[in-house]
Formats: sequence, structure tokens, C-alpha cells
Amino acid sequence: MLRGPFLDRSWMGQNPDYKTSDIIMLGLPFDGTVSYRSGSRFAPEQIRLASWGLEEYSPIFDKELEQVNFHDAGDLEFPLGNTYKSLEQIKENVEDIYKDGKRVFGIGGEHLVTLPEIQAVSKFYKDFAIVHFDAHTDLREEYLGEEMSHSAVIRHCSKIVGAENIKQIGIRSGMKEEWEFMAKNNTLCKEYKDLESIKGKKIFITVDLDCLDTSIMPGTGTPEAGGLTFNELVGWFKYLKDFEIIGADVVELAPDYDASGVSTAVATKVIRELLMIM
Amino acid sequence: MLRGPFLDRSWMGQNPDYKTSDIIMLGLPFDGTVSYRSGSRFAPEQIRLASWGLEEYSPIFDKELEQVNFHDAGDLEFPLGNTYKSLEQIKENVEDIYKDGKRVFGIGGEHLVTLPEIQAVSKFYKDFAIVHFDAHTDLREEYLGEEMSHSAVIRHCSKIVGAENIKQIGIRSGMKEEWEFMAKNNTLCKEYKDLESIKGKKIFITVDLDCLDTSIMPGTGTPEAGGLTFNELVGWFKYLKDFEIIGADVVELAPDYDASGVSTAVATKVIRELLMIM
Amino acid sequence: MLRGPFLDRSWMGQNPDYKTSDIIMLGLPFDGTVSYRSGSRFAPEQIRLASWGLEEYSPIFDKELEQVNFHDAGDLEFPLGNTYKSLEQIKENVEDIYKDGKRVFGIGGEHLVTLPEIQAVSKFYKDFAIVHFDAHTDLREEYLGEEMSHSAVIRHCSKIVGAENIKQIGIRSGMKEEWEFMAKNNTLCKEYKDLESIKGKKIFITVDLDCLDTSIMPGTGTPEAGGLTFNELVGWFKYLKDFEIIGADVVELAPDYDASGVSTAVATKVIRELLMIM
Amino acid sequence: MLRGPFLDRSWMGQNPDYKTSDIIMLGLPFDGTVSYRSGSRFAPEQIRLASWGLEEYSPIFDKELEQVNFHDAGDLEFPLGNTYKSLEQIKENVEDIYKDGKRVFGIGGEHLVTLPEIQAVSKFYKDFAIVHFDAHTDLREEYLGEEMSHSAVIRHCSKIVGAENIKQIGIRSGMKEEWEFMAKNNTLCKEYKDLESIKGKKIFITVDLDCLDTSIMPGTGTPEAGGLTFNELVGWFKYLKDFEIIGADVVELAPDYDASGVSTAVATKVIRELLMIM
Amino acid sequence: MLRGPFLDRSWMGQNPDYKTSDIIMLGLPFDGTVSYRSGSRFAPEQIRLASWGLEEYSPIFDKELEQVNFHDAGDLEFPLGNTYKSLEQIKENVEDIYKDGKRVFGIGGEHLVTLPEIQAVSKFYKDFAIVHFDAHTDLREEYLGEEMSHSAVIRHCSKIVGAENIKQIGIRSGMKEEWEFMAKNNTLCKEYKDLESIKGKKIFITVDLDCLDTSIMPGTGTPEAGGLTFNELVGWFKYLKDFEIIGADVVELAPDYDASGVSTAVATKVIRELLMIM
Amino acid sequence: MLRGPFLDRSWMGQNPDYKTSDIIMLGLPFDGTVSYRSGSRFAPEQIRLASWGLEEYSPIFDKELEQVNFHDAGDLEFPLGNTYKSLEQIKENVEDIYKDGKRVFGIGGEHLVTLPEIQAVSKFYKDFAIVHFDAHTDLREEYLGEEMSHSAVIRHCSKIVGAENIKQIGIRSGMKEEWEFMAKNNTLCKEYKDLESIKGKKIFITVDLDCLDTSIMPGTGTPEAGGLTFNELVGWFKYLKDFEIIGADVVELAPDYDASGVSTAVATKVIRELLMIM
Repeated sequence: MLRGPFLDRSWMGQNPDYKTSDIIMLGLPFDGTVSYRSGSRFAPEQIRLASWGLEEYSPIFDKELEQVNFHDAGDLEFPLGNTYKSLEQIKENVEDIYKDGKRVFGIGGEHLVTLPEIQAVSKFYKDFAIVHFDAHTDLREEYLGEEMSHSAVIRHCSKIVGAENIKQIGIRSGMKEEWEFMAKNNTLCKEYKDLESIKGKKIFITVDLDCLDTSIMPGTGTPEAGGLTFNELVGWFKYLKDFEIIGADVVELAPDYDASGVSTAVATKVIRELLMIM
Repeated sequence: MLRGPFLDRSWMGQNPDYKTSDIIMLGLPFDGTVSYRSGSRFAPEQIRLASWGLEEYSPIFDKELEQVNFHDAGDLEFPLGNTYKSLEQIKENVEDIYKDGKRVFGIGGEHLVTLPEIQAVSKFYKDFAIVHFDAHTDLREEYLGEEMSHSAVIRHCSKIVGAENIKQIGIRSGMKEEWEFMAKNNTLCKEYKDLESIKGKKIFITVDLDCLDTSIMPGTGTPEAGGLTFNELVGWFKYLKDFEIIGADVVELAPDYDASGVSTAVATKVIRELLMIM
Repeated sequence: MLRGPFLDRSWMGQNPDYKTSDIIMLGLPFDGTVSYRSGSRFAPEQIRLASWGLEEYSPIFDKELEQVNFHDAGDLEFPLGNTYKSLEQIKENVEDIYKDGKRVFGIGGEHLVTLPEIQAVSKFYKDFAIVHFDAHTDLREEYLGEEMSHSAVIRHCSKIVGAENIKQIGIRSGMKEEWEFMAKNNTLCKEYKDLESIKGKKIFITVDLDCLDTSIMPGTGTPEAGGLTFNELVGWFKYLKDFEIIGADVVELAPDYDASGVSTAVATKVIRELLMIM
Repeated sequence: MLRGPFLDRSWMGQNPDYKTSDIIMLGLPFDGTVSYRSGSRFAPEQIRLASWGLEEYSPIFDKELEQVNFHDAGDLEFPLGNTYKSLEQIKENVEDIYKDGKRVFGIGGEHLVTLPEIQAVSKFYKDFAIVHFDAHTDLREEYLGEEMSHSAVIRHCSKIVGAENIKQIGIRSGMKEEWEFMAKNNTLCKEYKDLESIKGKKIFITVDLDCLDTSIMPGTGTPEAGGLTFNELVGWFKYLKDFEIIGADVVELAPDYDASGVSTAVATKVIRELLMIM
Repeated sequence: MLRGPFLDRSWMGQNPDYKTSDIIMLGLPFDGTVSYRSGSRFAPEQIRLASWGLEEYSPIFDKELEQVNFHDAGDLEFPLGNTYKSLEQIKENVEDIYKDGKRVFGIGGEHLVTLPEIQAVSKFYKDFAIVHFDAHTDLREEYLGEEMSHSAVIRHCSKIVGAENIKQIGIRSGMKEEWEFMAKNNTLCKEYKDLESIKGKKIFITVDLDCLDTSIMPGTGTPEAGGLTFNELVGWFKYLKDFEIIGADVVELAPDYDASGVSTAVATKVIRELLMIM
Repeated sequence: MLRGPFLDRSWMGQNPDYKTSDIIMLGLPFDGTVSYRSGSRFAPEQIRLASWGLEEYSPIFDKELEQVNFHDAGDLEFPLGNTYKSLEQIKENVEDIYKDGKRVFGIGGEHLVTLPEIQAVSKFYKDFAIVHFDAHTDLREEYLGEEMSHSAVIRHCSKIVGAENIKQIGIRSGMKEEWEFMAKNNTLCKEYKDLESIKGKKIFITVDLDCLDTSIMPGTGTPEAGGLTFNELVGWFKYLKDFEIIGADVVELAPDYDASGVSTAVATKVIRELLMIM
């Protein structure tokens, strides 16, 4: 046998054992419905490699990755071009996770992957809220006639958890009708206190990386100027630390659009900090 | 009114009038089933802009673009994520072209767009052959369980025109079963004379740009080493000049994967030369 | 005829009819005098394509693009290498716009295009101010012996409208002499109230995109650290909403220097928001 | 447990079991002595991911990867900045492979990794030749005073196996002294017959990817115009198929220098074809 | 002889005469120990070219480069792969500078170059502090068994000047043990007043450019989200203007990782502003 | 003083002394009239840096650079935007070179720089031919109304030396009228023997790097598929070795369009080999 030492190519700081882990990181390389630029299918594998450029210790939360107790389960394989079958696969695997008494941490892929995650989670939890970081409302009913679109994912989720359980942060783009939906349902949050109404509830956190400013996250499908800084995003994470988080995902990194590799590095750190509060 | 002069942003050398044109160039920005890297949805628009970096005159064929009499009809708009509906739209529009007594020149998009083109053409022509330039056999029955895949497009076409009417050039990648299909049906052509069996037939030419070597065409979804040079490809075009060409397409440019812009420039010249022999 | 549907390739949300439009968007792909990196000649066409990645609705101004009533007139064609003739063409076309009772919205190209715009506008308006967003003073008398340089454009404009009618925002680079000119003429604005002296006047707004920080706008000819954020720029737009704006331009995007496409996306949004206040 | 299916992230077509494998693929991410551009440390991991863009079947050799029976052992971890210790680690691990009766297939990293491989192999085989594909002679005694340099690797190897057992293909760059060494020792091969003198000998094949033309392999540290085509390289592989190959490596891919990903794709195919002849 | 005029290719605004200069700018293209991505060896030459995209006048400090009286001495040549010999060369040359009564301004290269600079300076000055801008603590004792690593540079320096004379700004990444070292020795500075304890002391300023946010400085080896803005960094420079600065360096630009050229442009401006306060 | 050693940043292998040199290398960073993509203004400086990635010895010509005895004079500085004045500066400096009994080796910049070179040379030599490597005929009378255009440079030169003294190699693009001019004047060369008619004459060699295939030289303004390989170009150089070469230039590298750096590396080698035959 070889004496090594060998580089580890799973996520830095993971628990290699599924059974004893609390959180299951699941790669979801699906990007079939994106309206502008695709390529988020390559995100889970590039994020995994980039994780080794980080430290295991987060000075923000004074905590090490191994204290999080998460397992990197790898990346699902999807039937390309078949949106419905792909979503079904996600739902089934996420259900497996919750059946085993664990929580999911999805790595997209595009934002539509959140829908089957929420469908699965809703079988196990009846009353929970979704905290949604994004540049875009994602509140369309359909896009060019298609119901299953990353532009519609939160609208579909709202039908599962109730519009009053949707809280949206970083939003700066959408159709007039979508902004009216936000106003009517009071979903848009600008300050921490706007999350009051869901305090005490279980929450699922979904982070579309384009919530970050285009300067910080050029490697994404639909970059939108005027976004959050990294420290603002982490500020929200600090606030959310006291919530009971029953699942999370980080989506929409398109690594090939940022040849500098920096978008991938930032996505990886977002994931580390979000793990810290779970 | 403004006196200009203004830059023309349709394809260089086109006939602006649909009715009096012989050939209809149709942009098909669909890339929903690709197995590796997508992005060919952006090809038609970038090719159109790049056409102005070419001359209208082809010294190879001693002919000018205006002698071709083609009309740039623009790019179809597809419902993202819905493969079947997208293919249906292509079929209907290509049928319109043939109803009007014209021929199609499709600009992909991915290679699956060829299937609805062939379906449409087969309603108007009963006995014709397909000359297929590609790195890949595209002869799978399905990919990861999906019948509608760019890896299966020529297999599906072979069921329409008959395997004896498929001629493949530049192929250098595929599964063992696919190579056996090629051997059995004698589809692979290495020299001009290998096209003997379809001489005198009407032909449809489909050019997957990855038939070209990776050095010439890095901006494509599934680059495969060991391909044709540009001059070899044009050599085949010269040979095919005497065939009756009833339609054509050029597919699988993914412009964002080649920041130098050269893949787009080459794709544009391939299109100009292919137009010259129609 | 083809049934489509087809993608629209003019600017999203434009009025396709020149006559009934209030504002004429005019592409000015000229970059002949830039001192460092050129390439802004490709900006108008890439911005037009990128506009379709935006929404028509601006939540900042709670307004849709169609309410702006602008027409995308296309891009002028220039005699390459002839600076004087190119500038003359711009002047003539902008005069046409004002003769027709409309206002210009120029899309550069480099910053020197603003000079012939101002020359044209000054034939129709006698007393107006220029609000100039930029990283650079652009107040040189000449550059390497050349009077016609993008580094001198505002100095030349100041001779038309008077130095007291020049207001500069975002400036952080220039020669000592230029900063003395700014100090003497009180042109530099750091807070909204610094615009007091031109309140009530008609204004022309010229936005050199390098006013934005290099992190936000890497795709520009002369990137200069320490610039405005997108939200700061839009903050100024909000303040300027109550001014009477008689023309505007957005210049100096060099799209090929940002392969991520993000600079183009941001430029496009700057344009949308600036249209909103006209 | 999760039902999957999951993407496999080891090299496509590998035997997951070390013990029953004949060939051990070993990632050697070391690039500490390169004279121009580094970055080959990232090659093994990117090649592994890119292997899934290939087919398992090689039409050139009419053989599938699983028939090769190789195991992907992963990538060694090196003490950065310590050249001697890194080389020692390689030597030890390669010795482990030969002790276990297997052969090494190294994935660089830079070309200096070949030296400890040859040192290890030479403990098990007494008389063997090295077939060296490269743009550069790599025959210096030292570089800027350093003996351990990628520019000197073949010179050092020649002291182990004898200069008469060095055969060099694709060479087009070096100092005058190095070319004189080649001439004196008759190491340079231009036609297959130039390999006559080592016929019947065991051989180790080392492929510096810059032997390929710069057009095919831009992602390398020291690109040198005028190189081999992919098909020429494979032609040599075909000729070498009848030799007894006791080890091999493929080195000097610097993936970050080719944002198109094509260099990595080509490197991966070179590896597949070289595996086919072992 | 040629009449010219010729472009100057030394640093803009330098004093071409070593003897009459106060500050010696010294290029240190060494990147042998970096833990993630290398390439800072190309920084000094690209920074020199980019300096001509700046103005000589700094409006921040109302001062021109020629008032700084610095000489661009060029770039040292190192024996690649030999860390110890390279560091020795730096030490000797920096000693030469101080023997001649001047101060060094080093341009890295990676951060380890600071160690021999400090060793040299400490021969001439007995009591001085180090002001350290960085994303990373650089306080390890070793990295993968290697003492000489860019991750350990400040720890080694602390042994020369005393931990109480280390002041760190911008730090946001490190191992838990390193953060404990910072806490124990009170090295981390968040506000200007945190520099109180070294007031009155001579200081050496070392700027690892990754102290800047990843959005501003993508072209660096180990990008880390959540960093300083350019204006925040310059704010610290303003505060430090009143200290007696006995040397400085700016390190870790990896220009090839930012094809937009913006990282290089920003690095160049950081250097100009830092020169202004010496 | 500093002990060094320092890296040399002039062209590798140059004679630092103008007076004792035979050939003067002159950087001509002018790109004011290009019809498509500019940026060749950055070529001379990037080529100079890249020259250090080459060896001084050419195995093709079995000769070292120092035997060529050339001096790198640096790069002229031009008044941006003023085509006529820039051309005048080139003419004057090249005249200086010939007055001093030396020969010019120009490094563009765009192709129009050849015109003032030829104007200058023609004052010293009455009967000479121009050997023109290019993808484009460059035989227009004007471009968009402008006589001074890189598309017209060889036409203008033909008026100085006579059309019978123009020999063109690699040409594959132009207007029909230009191809008729070539046919009428027998300028196009496809085989070495096509140069018969100028045998014995003095020649000036001008190499537009886009004569090379787009795969080899993506970093150029107007890439055109179907070009020469590097070895074909060098083959012509070998044939031309026996001609009396009275001057040369190499133009149209646009380094920023090839982030891999390979176009610059190839340009540099073209220059080295061309120097070898002078």
C-alpha cells in the first residue's frame, strides 16, 4: 500500500461518516431552467476543491468546522434535459436525510433545487419559515410559459409554507407584480427587526449567491448590481444564529464565469459561515 | 430623422426581405440537454455580431454573400427547461420555411435542434441523406435515461431517413456500441469517396463545430482532441458543392468558453463557407 | 411566414417608433483617442444584448421602462482612425434629434463623444449645466499634444457652457493643474448640496462608468481604485430626478476586459436607472 | 441512507480497489522549480473532474478504460517550498507501488517529478530506456545555480539509465549545449525508426504536455510554438504499443492558464490513450 | 541616434539615479512557498507597466510622485526552487540599501519576502514595530512541516521585533491557535487608536494585498471574502503618515489570476499612496 | 550600491549598445485605425517580457541571438488619436536608423506602421520588394472613407515599390476587388517558387501575425480561420534566408485578447526566428 500522505478531496472539515453526522451536505448540480447564463452544474465540485483554500476555524463565530458535524455526501447525478425527473430525485434524497433524523445542506446548481428540498422538508415539519437571500424575487408564476423555472421557485415554495412564512433579503430585481406580491405579503426585509414575525419559528435558509453584489460574485447566472457585501450577509447569519435552522442551501454559483476563481472562493466561505450557525 | 450612417446588426450580406430569399437563417438558442458544458444558447447573437469581422467575399468559392440570397430571420424564443415544447417550436417554424418553398439554415444552440429540423424537412422530402460533421457519434439511444439528448440526435434522425442515409465525418468519440453501429451501417467517412453511396441524393448538412480540433474551436461544450482543421472541413464543403443541399445547420458554439472570441470568429466563417455551397 | 416567437434584439423596453419617442438612444462606438486601453467601441452592441438580462421594472424608481418612452436608434458607423470626422458625425446626428424635439441618450464609446453631443445641444439650449460622473477630471488642455482626447473632454465642454456650469462627481484622479482648476471653479461635488448652484438649471448628465469602483466596473479603459458604489451612483440619480434633464450619455465600458460579463450587466443597469429619471 | 444516484469523482473507468489493480495513477501536485509560469499543482484534480467529459472507449485502440485495470490513488500532499522533501515523498510512494508489483502512472505537477519516479523504478528494473516527449530538452546541469530544476530533469535521469537509453520526441527548444548533448548521444527522434536502438527494452514514458503545439495546449508553463499535433503524439503511442512499458507520467498541465478548459480536456485524453497502451 | 520620443518603462515618476534617491524600490519576484495559488513572481514587472496608467499626482495626499524621491532598482533574479538561497539574496540587497542610508520599498512576490527584509532592517534599527495589513494572520510556526512558509512570516518576524511590536490590520483568517496568539499579544487592530501602543516608534509597513476585499483584489493567491475597501486601506495610510516609516513592502499580487488587469491597477495605486507617506 | 543579481528587462539577447548594433528593434505601439478589435498598442512591452521565456538558441537555424547583433531601442510614444502625426514619427525614426547604416526591425502595433517604415526605407533603397505575410490582402484604397487604414497599407506600399514588387503569403481574406488586384499583379505566393520573380532583389519582410492560424494566434485584432502553421511560416523564413533583407516588422499582436499568454509567446518566437535570417 502507499504511505502517502494524500490530499483529502472531500469538503474540508467534514465528518466522513454519514451515520454519525448531524448535517448532510448534498451537491445538486442541476441548471436546466435558468433564464440567462447557466453553468451552476459545475459549482459543487469546484466549491469542494476550493474549500481547502479556507481555514477550518471561523473567527466570526469562534468555532471550527469539525464542531459542526457535517458529512459531504457527494453530488447527485441527474438526467439532463428532464427537469421533472431531476426535481423528483432531489426530493427523494432529501427525504432520506430527514428520515434519518438529519438536516440537509444543499449546494446548487440553480435555485429551482430549493423547491424539492422544501417539498421534502415539509413532510417532516409542518410550520416553518423560509429565509430567502437573493437579488431576484423569484416570485413569478411561470417564465415563458414554464411553471418549473428558477424565477418561480419562491412563489411555489410560498404555496407550501404560506406567504406569511417567506422572508426575503437582498432583493433588488423583479417584475412589478412580484414587488406587489412582496408588499402585500410583507416578505421583504431590510433590517433585522423585519424578521420579528417569524421569531421562534423553525426556518429553512436559502442563499442565492447573487444576493451578493456583482463585484463580489461575478460568477453567477444573472448578476444584478447593488447587492449585499459579504459582511452584510454574514451580519444576517449572526442574527439568525439563534433561530432553529432545519435546513439550508447555497445556490447559483456559475464558476466558469469567473476565471479568477474568486466567486468560488467566496461561495465556499459563505457556506462555511452558514454551516457555523446550524 | 437621423442621418446616420448606422451599423447594420443583421447578418452581414443578408437579404433583408424574407419573401424574395431562397435560404432562411434561423437562430435556435436552445441548450437544454447538453451533457457537459452548456452556453450554446448565446451563439446565434454573438455569431451575428462577429459576421461583420468577415468579408462578404469568399476567395475559396470566388463568390459573394449576396449571391447566396439568404435572409436572417432572427432567433426563436424558447420556454426554458421544457425540452419537448422547444423542439416543437423549431419543427413548426422550419415547416413554415419549407411551406414557403425555401430552405433552412439553422444556427444552434445544441445539436438536438437538428432533430426537429429533420422531422420538418422529412415532411417535404421523402428520400434524402444527412451529412453529419461531429467529434461525437451522437448515436446513443438515450443519455442517463433521457431519450431527448444531444448525444442521441443522429440515432433519432437515422430512424427518419434510414441508417444507410447517414454519413458521418470527423467522428472520434463514442461508446463502443455506437462505433459498432457506425461499422455495421457504414456511416463513417474518412475520404471523399466514402460519400459515393449517397451521390445523387438530396442532402441535409449538419455541422457540430466540435468536429474541428479543440485548438480551433475551444468554445464548445464537449471539446475532443484530434479533430479536423478548418481547411479539411472546407475541403469537404468543396466536395459537397455539387450535391443538392436541402437544408443545413451549424451548432454547438459556446461563445463564453472562449474569451478570445476566436471560436465565434471561426464559427462565423464556417457558416459563410457553408452558405456558399447551398 | 414564420410563426416565431422571436427574440427581440433591440434594447429591452424601447419604443420601436422614432417619431413617437421622447428620448433617442444612440450607440456611439468610437474609441480612437483613449490613453490606456481601448475597446469601448464594442459597448453599445453588448449592452443591447445584456439589457435582456434585466427586468423592465425598476424597484428603485417604481417605474417601468416603457413609461420612459425611449427609442433605440442603433449605432453610428464611424471612419476608423479619423477622429475629427467621427466627432462631426456625432454632432450632426445629435442635432437631428434636437431638431425633432427629442433628447439624446448616448451610449459610448469613449468619453470624447460627449463633446460633439454638447456642441449639438448648445445650439438648442443656451444656459445649461453638465453633471459629470467620472474617476478622472478630464480637464486637460491636451494629451501628448492632441487637443482632441478623452482626457480633455470636460475642459472643452467647459468652454461651451462655462466652468461654473460644470459639476463633477466621483473624481479621484488627475494632474495637479486639473485639481487646481476644479478647486478654482468649485466643480467637485462630494455631497448633494454641492449641486445647489445649478439648481433650477437644465442639465446634461454624462456618466463615465469608471466613476464606479474598479471592483464593480473592471471592464473599462482606465480603472481607478476607490470609486463609487452602485448604490451611491443611484443615490445621485435620485437626487437629480427633480432636475430638468435635457440629455445624457453613459460611456467607457470596454466589455472585452471583463470576461465575466458583469461590467456589461452593471453598465446596462446604470443606463436603465438613468433612463428612469429623464 | 441516501439512494442517490451519485456522481463518481474518481477518474472515470478506474478500478476502485488498489490491490487488484495493475497500474496505480498517482497525482503529484508539485510545481516548485518551474522557470516561467507555475500552476501545475492544480492539474491532477482538474484532470480527474474532466475525465468525465470523455468516453471510456478509445476508438483509436478499440479498447475500454476498464480493460486497462488502473486505480486512481489520489494526490500526494507536499511540504510547499521544500523541493528535496517533496521529491523524497514521491520516490517512496512510487517504490511502494513497485514493491506491490504494480506500475506507476504519474500525473504532474511539473516535470521534475519524473526524477524520483525514475529513481524508484531503477531500484526494480536494471536496464530500461526513457521515452521523453517534450518541447524542451530538459538537459541542463542546473538552472540559475540550482541542480533540482525541471529544466534539468532528463539530464539527471540520463545519469541513472545512461544517455544511450534516453529517446526524445517533440524537442524544439534548449541551449546550444543541450542540443550538442542530444546530437552526441543521438537522443532526438524524428521518425519511428529512430527508436530502433531501444527496441526490445523495457521503457518508461514521460510526457511533458508542452510537446504538443501551443495551439493545442496553451495551459502549460512554458509554451513553445511549433509542436506536435494530438494525432502525431498518438501516432507515437501506437508505435510504442508493442514495447513493454514499466511506468509512465504526464506532466506540466497548468489548468488556470487556459480558462476555456480545453488544455485540461486534451491532457485528459492524452492520459486515456497512454493508459490504453500500458 | 533615434530622435524618439520613447516611452519610459521604469516606474512612473521615479528618480533614475540610485545615489540621490531616498527610497529604493526593489522587485522581489519570489513565490516558492505559497500554500494555494502562485504567480506573484510576475507582479513587479506588470506593476511597473501599469504604473503608467496612473497620474503622478495623488489628490489624497496633494503630492506628486517626484516629491517622494524613489528609485526603481529593478527586480532581483532568484534561483528557482531554492527558498533559502532566495531569501539570503533579499537580505543582502536590503542590507546594501540601508548601508547606503536609504530605505527599502519591496514589491513582492509572496509574503515570505518580508522576513529577510526585516532581518536586514533589524541590523540597522534596534527598536521598531511592524504594521501588517493582511487577510491572514501569517502566524503559524510552520506549514506542512516547513518553517519557511508565507503562512509563517509574521510569526518569524515577531521573534525579531517582539510580539508587542506587531500590529495587524484587516485580518480575517487563521487557525484558532493563531487567533489566540493575536488575542494574547494584542496584535489585532480594528480602529486607529489600536495603534496607540506603538506611537512614536519607527515602523515598517508590510501590505499583503489580500487585506483588500476579494472584489477589489481578485488577482491574489489566497482570496478571502470580507476585506478592506481601498478607501479604508488608504484611511490607515493617512493615519500612519505621521509615523516614521523605515521601510515598506507590498506583496502577493498574482496578476495572471485577474485577466481584467484591474488587480494590477489597484496594486499600483496602493503602492503610489504608500510611497506618498514615506 | 545593490549587489543584485537583477533580471534584465530589455529583449533577451540584445546588444545594449545602439552604436555597435546592426539591427535596431523599435517598438511601435500604435493601433489607431484598426477595423475590428484594437489592443496591439500593448504588444511591444508584453513581447519584451515574454522573450525571457525563450532560449537564446534557435535549433532551427543553429544560431544564437547574440550572433544577430540587434539592439532593443524601446517603444516610441505617440500622440493618441492623431494618425498622421504618429505615422510621421515612425518615418523619422526609421530614417534615423538607416542614416546610421543600420536596419529596422519594427514591433507593432497595427499594420499601418509598415507604411512609414517603407517610406523611410525607400529613401535609402531604390529597388526592393516587400514580402508580406498576412491573412488579409490589405489592398483597399480606403476603409470607410479613410485612406490611412491598416486595411490599405499594402496598397499604399505598392505605390512606392511597384505592384510587381509585392509578394503576399498566407492571404485568405479580402474584397473581390482586392483579389482581382492580386491576380492581375501576380502578388499571391503559394509555393516558394512563386518568389522567383524577386530573387536577387533586396527585400523588406512584414509579418502580420494573423497570417498564422487562429488556433495559434488568437490574440490578434481580426482573426481569420484557415491560416499557416508556425512551421509553415518558419519554412518560408528558411527559404528567405538567402535573400538580402533590408528591414522587417512583426505586427498585430493584441495580447489582451489571449489571456493564456500563448499568442504573445508565439509572437516572440516568430520574432526570434525572423531575427535569425537577417
